[in-house]
Amino acid sequence: MLIVGELINTTRKPVREAVEKRDEQYIREIARAQEKAGADYIDVNCGTFVGTEVPTMEWLVETLLKETKLPLCIDSANPLALEAGLKKAIHGQSMINSITDEASRWNAVLPLVKKYGTKIIALCVEDAGMPKTANSRVRISGSLITKLTAAGVAMDDIYIDPVIVPISTGESYGVDALDAVQEITKAYPRVHTICGLANISFGLPARHVLNRTFMVQAMVRGMDSYILDPTDKEMRGVLLASQALAGHDKFCRKFITAYRQGFFGRLQGE
Amino acid sequence: MLIVGELINTTRKPVREAVEKRDEQYIREIARAQEKAGADYIDVNCGTFVGTEVPTMEWLVETLLKETKLPLCIDSANPLALEAGLKKAIHGQSMINSITDEASRWNAVLPLVKKYGTKIIALCVEDAGMPKTANSRVRISGSLITKLTAAGVAMDDIYIDPVIVPISTGESYGVDALDAVQEITKAYPRVHTICGLANISFGLPARHVLNRTFMVQAMVRGMDSYILDPTDKEMRGVLLASQALAGHDKFCRKFITAYRQGFFGRLQGE
Repeated sequence: MLIVGELINTTRKPVREAVEKRDEQYIREIARAQEKAGADYIDVNCGTFVGTEVPTMEWLVETLLKETKLPLCIDSANPLALEAGLKKAIHGQSMINSITDEASRWNAVLPLVKKYGTKIIALCVEDAGMPKTANSRVRISGSLITKLTAAGVAMDDIYIDPVIVPISTGESYGVDALDAVQEITKAYPRVHTICGLANISFGLPARHVLNRTFMVQAMVRGMDSYILDPTDKEMRGVLLASQALAGHDKFCRKFITAYRQGFFGRLQGE
Repeated sequence: MLIVGELINTTRKPVREAVEKRDEQYIREIARAQEKAGADYIDVNCGTFVGTEVPTMEWLVETLLKETKLPLCIDSANPLALEAGLKKAIHGQSMINSITDEASRWNAVLPLVKKYGTKIIALCVEDAGMPKTANSRVRISGSLITKLTAAGVAMDDIYIDPVIVPISTGESYGVDALDAVQEITKAYPRVHTICGLANISFGLPARHVLNRTFMVQAMVRGMDSYILDPTDKEMRGVLLASQALAGHDKFCRKFITAYRQGFFGRLQGE
């Protein structure tokens, strides 16, 4: 299982403001908090800095290198910003968020995957657009996996993202994505699946409840990696509970230890 | 989906004390709270009153009839206490908790199922003992379903309980039970599955986190009914979230309405 910490993203207002002021301390604090909470990778996204994304990405990565030895997940729609980040990200094996099966995106990102030997999040999107069904996700991911492995990328470095569409826009959209995850996991047991959890609850109240519940559902269906806020203690508790209940925590040791260390919150009645 | 409220059980100290004092008001309060929180059935268990279980059951059912029109789930290891409760439980279709595939239990309970036309919780236990694997649960439930339907019980009135064994005693025990639920649901789509959630977390800290997470996992695997504390607001929120994410809540209307009415808790960050 791989946890990608999602907090360093300039769509979040305090991060945007810190980046504007070049406030190193705030960025380092968030990185430290995510590392302490158990993140395996730190996502870096400054896509809101249109026109200055490349120098912003460089500054962010340089700042992160001062704080953490964790590898980074370089996250951008702009291939120049991706390469700017990858060049500087020297700790461990970097990750790219993301490649798709759209010709222009594919052609721009594949050379970076190979040049920097990265892990790659492969998003189920093609030139015809976003997938509408479980079947179209399975088809697009099949195409992506075939082409990536043909290009020399190891199965174990591929993280398929099925594309999470908010259930507020259609009640079957959560199930559709997870049906696809189950199929993909069955067809390609050595490939990983990942998603950003928060999108599922867009437009709804009590988003944290929905996000946590969707994580549990996704794990049951075979998803093994998540882009999330690792400092959300309730999410962490549910993640550890899911693993223990799935039989992946011998004697429930990780769950019990994390609880004793106050890693997740005590709830009413406990 | 069917929710059986589990609170009226004399293993719980305040309930035992209220029953000892014949405190009608307290029992009625718990019944009302469970009904208000959305319970479909009220479980009644006074098995700790060894020797006086029959009159205690009669008093409890009489007391409940004064407060609620909900049907009751009469819950006892003692067939005499079962019949004492069933005779008085006149609202709707009663439920019995439970029959097993042990000869003595089968012979004592089946006549009550037929005489009172009840729904029946069928626990996967046989004379050879508790089930150790998913396969043994599937085999025992097959035997129970075959015999119950042969005796004239409708598929829709059968609720298979796979027997939940605490994961503190073996890390695969949660998965084993849910593997069985998935098999049973596939083989007998018209039969229901149910369980008491709390047993899964026996002996562990943060039990509510484990119980809620196990409920989400069980629903993904096909379980449609639960014996739980319906007044646990966080559980209620997770239950509604699970249904919405499973595509069973058109426009997420039930989830949004329940949230607006304060039906489940607001959490940090919302």
